[in-house]
Amino acid sequence: MIRMELEVALRYEIDAHGADFIFNIHAAQTDSQTVSDESLQVSQPVAWQVHTEPDTGNRRLRMRAGPGLLALRYAATVELIHHRHAPAALAEVPVCRLPADVLGYLYPSRYCESDRLGRLAMQEFGHLPPGCERVLAIARWVQRRITFRSSSSNSATSAVDTLVSQVGVCRDFAHLMIALCRALNIPARFTTGTDYGADPGLGPPDFHAYVEVYLGRRWYIFDPSGTSIPMGFVRFGTGRDASDVAFATIFGNVVTHAPVVSGMAVVDACIGALQPHHCPETLSTDAPQAVGRQCRDSAMRSRWSAA
Amino acid sequence: MIRMELEVALRYEIDAHGADFIFNIHAAQTDSQTVSDESLQVSQPVAWQVHTEPDTGNRRLRMRAGPGLLALRYAATVELIHHRHAPAALAEVPVCRLPADVLGYLYPSRYCESDRLGRLAMQEFGHLPPGCERVLAIARWVQRRITFRSSSSNSATSAVDTLVSQVGVCRDFAHLMIALCRALNIPARFTTGTDYGADPGLGPPDFHAYVEVYLGRRWYIFDPSGTSIPMGFVRFGTGRDASDVAFATIFGNVVTHAPVVSGMAVVDACIGALQPHHCPETLSTDAPQAVGRQCRDSAMRSRWSAA
Amino acid sequence: MIRMELEVALRYEIDAHGADFIFNIHAAQTDSQTVSDESLQVSQPVAWQVHTEPDTGNRRLRMRAGPGLLALRYAATVELIHHRHAPAALAEVPVCRLPADVLGYLYPSRYCESDRLGRLAMQEFGHLPPGCERVLAIARWVQRRITFRSSSSNSATSAVDTLVSQVGVCRDFAHLMIALCRALNIPARFTTGTDYGADPGLGPPDFHAYVEVYLGRRWYIFDPSGTSIPMGFVRFGTGRDASDVAFATIFGNVVTHAPVVSGMAVVDACIGALQPHHCPETLSTDAPQAVGRQCRDSAMRSRWSAA
Amino acid sequence: MIRMELEVALRYEIDAHGADFIFNIHAAQTDSQTVSDESLQVSQPVAWQVHTEPDTGNRRLRMRAGPGLLALRYAATVELIHHRHAPAALAEVPVCRLPADVLGYLYPSRYCESDRLGRLAMQEFGHLPPGCERVLAIARWVQRRITFRSSSSNSATSAVDTLVSQVGVCRDFAHLMIALCRALNIPARFTTGTDYGADPGLGPPDFHAYVEVYLGRRWYIFDPSGTSIPMGFVRFGTGRDASDVAFATIFGNVVTHAPVVSGMAVVDACIGALQPHHCPETLSTDAPQAVGRQCRDSAMRSRWSAA
Repeated sequence: MIRMELEVALRYEIDAHGADFIFNIHAAQTDSQTVSDESLQVSQPVAWQVHTEPDTGNRRLRMRAGPGLLALRYAATVELIHHRHAPAALAEVPVCRLPADVLGYLYPSRYCESDRLGRLAMQEFGHLPPGCERVLAIARWVQRRITFRSSSSNSATSAVDTLVSQVGVCRDFAHLMIALCRALNIPARFTTGTDYGADPGLGPPDFHAYVEVYLGRRWYIFDPSGTSIPMGFVRFGTGRDASDVAFATIFGNVVTHAPVVSGMAVVDACIGALQPHHCPETLSTDAPQAVGRQCRDSAMRSRWSAA
Repeated sequence: MIRMELEVALRYEIDAHGADFIFNIHAAQTDSQTVSDESLQVSQPVAWQVHTEPDTGNRRLRMRAGPGLLALRYAATVELIHHRHAPAALAEVPVCRLPADVLGYLYPSRYCESDRLGRLAMQEFGHLPPGCERVLAIARWVQRRITFRSSSSNSATSAVDTLVSQVGVCRDFAHLMIALCRALNIPARFTTGTDYGADPGLGPPDFHAYVEVYLGRRWYIFDPSGTSIPMGFVRFGTGRDASDVAFATIFGNVVTHAPVVSGMAVVDACIGALQPHHCPETLSTDAPQAVGRQCRDSAMRSRWSAA
Repeated sequence: MIRMELEVALRYEIDAHGADFIFNIHAAQTDSQTVSDESLQVSQPVAWQVHTEPDTGNRRLRMRAGPGLLALRYAATVELIHHRHAPAALAEVPVCRLPADVLGYLYPSRYCESDRLGRLAMQEFGHLPPGCERVLAIARWVQRRITFRSSSSNSATSAVDTLVSQVGVCRDFAHLMIALCRALNIPARFTTGTDYGADPGLGPPDFHAYVEVYLGRRWYIFDPSGTSIPMGFVRFGTGRDASDVAFATIFGNVVTHAPVVSGMAVVDACIGALQPHHCPETLSTDAPQAVGRQCRDSAMRSRWSAA
Repeated sequence: MIRMELEVALRYEIDAHGADFIFNIHAAQTDSQTVSDESLQVSQPVAWQVHTEPDTGNRRLRMRAGPGLLALRYAATVELIHHRHAPAALAEVPVCRLPADVLGYLYPSRYCESDRLGRLAMQEFGHLPPGCERVLAIARWVQRRITFRSSSSNSATSAVDTLVSQVGVCRDFAHLMIALCRALNIPARFTTGTDYGADPGLGPPDFHAYVEVYLGRRWYIFDPSGTSIPMGFVRFGTGRDASDVAFATIFGNVVTHAPVVSGMAVVDACIGALQPHHCPETLSTDAPQAVGRQCRDSAMRSRWSAA
């Protein structure tokens, strides 16, 4: 078990008209990610609501703030129990057996134009045997080709742009990996949260974006940027791509200050809390899903063929 | 009340590997769209499933078909009771009061890059008073600028492409209108179904794509292509854009024959069934939604501000 | 007559491999732009060459510099005698009568995708009578729609991008105007030089990019950014778009410091040198060209038709 | 020596307004491509002109045609004497030594966005020793990745599009190879002409697009589509990309019929005329150019450094 303490501080300057905010900075509550001792402080005396999406567990904080400074501080203690699986034993799932609520992650989205990458994905990865190893090959391909450089992309940059420019930040690595998976009919989604840091001894934690891929019966974590320790990720939101799960979606004229993220792993032998570390297994913090009925077992039959 | 009888016939030639299909050709079951006497015929003796999405009522038909011909015939009788509203009295809903499941329709998607159109949308429509009349102004703007021409776009064409090329088919008109609405923080979604025909006396019915915009407490129908009578639309699917609700999403090597769509309005004075006709009101076939709690009424208050 | 004194200072830091440079910072020598008292200082003891392109008068400075600092200082005194023409009397030239060396400016180029804007250009400007007034209408349309904002675009930004984003710098205004002209079969080219400043009393001079359009028998100056006084432009280079006439094209790893441009108009009653000022005429600093022979006057006749 | 007889037949239907045409269907006259027995037939009794561009030898045919049918038939006998060079001995030319009129082929153009491909080109080819072998590696890379498929691209398709879609026609192969060469500072240009056919015994000749790269002191021929025998190419036009040297640029509303191209090699032992065949050398039909003066030999020295 991993126990993380994290804190996120955000600051905005809002103009005279006020502004609406949708935040996605709450740690998600999932079967294997338990949130305790959570607190939220808001500097303005405004009302706010948190809505939890039933399908994803994303928690969205909404508020309308007035002119001037808006500061938020969110803190939580999170316990993670990872499901671990040997990559070699994790299979891709045929389209006809995918759970219905996974299908949407096969389709192209704003930043993941998988519809344009079918031929390239088949040429690069079509010859590999389906399964987790192929997904790992995609992650390595993205990591090898794309150079990480801060401020090298912007809010309009998509997977195709990154494929061409070969430079980006974690969000761009994730979008490209997702687009390539979907182009091969492998469901993939964009996940945000906090990152335990490249070097646990020194590197500061930060917001992070990574990938979850549906294999076997679960969504498994992949980090194509290769900058972090997946076992230390605390998940905030998951969606089609960055448009779904921005840390903050702002409606109004606002100056945004750099966020401050802090976090640490609490190592405690009594409760079995470990330091996050690289491990050979593929990890999931998602619940297993009911296997889709095999198409040929369906009880509902066509009338024409029955005639 | 409008009663429509419709039939859709699809034909594919599948190569030796077989193929998976996800169809979206069932009439949706909504509060105001009742489906009766439905039948589906499939030429191959394969199993299939229909899954209904809880949020949208979309019904997805999935099957894995073998090599050779696959023919489908779907027929249904559909009764439509439209909610009608005077445009002048339909308001836009502030972001902070939108129902949670409507928020996703504010974000950019594969074919509706609203994030790139903020300045243009503000310049063209920012000075208009918010409300249904502004949405109608967007629909007219799109209709006036874009020329309808068959085969002028393809499966990669997006709202920005259409804005530049100024030519497209109904799907492109819909994508551009949606992108402009979202750029103004007005939730908009892409809807598919059948079209009663441009000229009910002569024009054949066809697949159609149009727009639903969230106003007041419902999703209202808009047809930026201007080619049809909205009262005659039978809804199949609704989603972020065409990637969500394609009539057929095919995984495999398949030759697609042109679909055949037929339909007619059944006029029956006894049951009060009318001919679809243009009307001055804005129409909805969607249920009203609970009004989002006003942000300032929230019982949950920030701790910081309370301190 | 306008007499300008100008000075351009550039500074680069070059890595250990050295770098090649192609500069376009010399004032062009044209029929109506006379350069005197020119000097160039280069901080490294490297050889350099200046090549004058016969068609355009562009002077390109080339050098290979070693590691470390490279500083250049170019100074010149330039006398401009403008050809002035009343807009109402300036006609567009039919394609069949354009001089051969003007034809290349009808075609799309890297930053001016006129091939994609044909329908939009016809819809906006197709109904206007051909001639200089139509070109002025294009310049005003661009100026009205696009907002000037520093650093709002980058070296990959094209006319289509600017049309969509509606924001840019002088280079983007120029590219969009050029693309619209070419889409209407009006030859247009991209011109760089120095700008007399938005406010001659206060505003500093700077590098500038503007447009020349072929009308009547000459290339005439248009400034779609509307930020400057065309009479004060000193021309450096002219080409298809910014890729042809960058101030500096650099081959190597180089840190670029902000350029320093200074300039002043020398007003001298004795030699008739005036202050640059806005004037109602359309201006040209280019020589008139021989009128293309009218197609039907050709002496060379087809054999088939003669048979 | 190769002697080719070729004939090109074009047909258009022009609407009531007439149309202007710029054709590029004349065999170029170069040092090593001699044209004899040339004829042009035009079905309408219109005047036409042919202009030869001094830099490239491109011959542009211009005419204004009236309503109705316009048919052209161009025939020529062409003798080709190829300059052959062993690839291993052909060097890339440093930017500072390139002839001035070659520099323009280093810059990005409408269909060859080399400015966007710098990182990718360096990653794929940056480690190879400069020279003809590296250029051949680029040609093979393009040929291996891109699939040839008729009608898979359109007039807006650029090198970046082809890189992403991995499918195209000869024009797209050429654009991608050119963009990659320019991204490495290797001058490259787009060349059109006729193709001797994939299989001289059977395949019909056709219009073709290929690449010329500046190496040593000449422009050498490369065929990244790999579909043809370079020794059998008859060159029509050469330019930055397809926008410069379209076979026909049409200004007006015109229906275009498929062109008919025929050609054959005349084998004649007496005059030494051979069948075109694949050969190990790199070929050029261009004259050698004066070597650019080495930058450090320049007589013109900077004043600052002299001080």
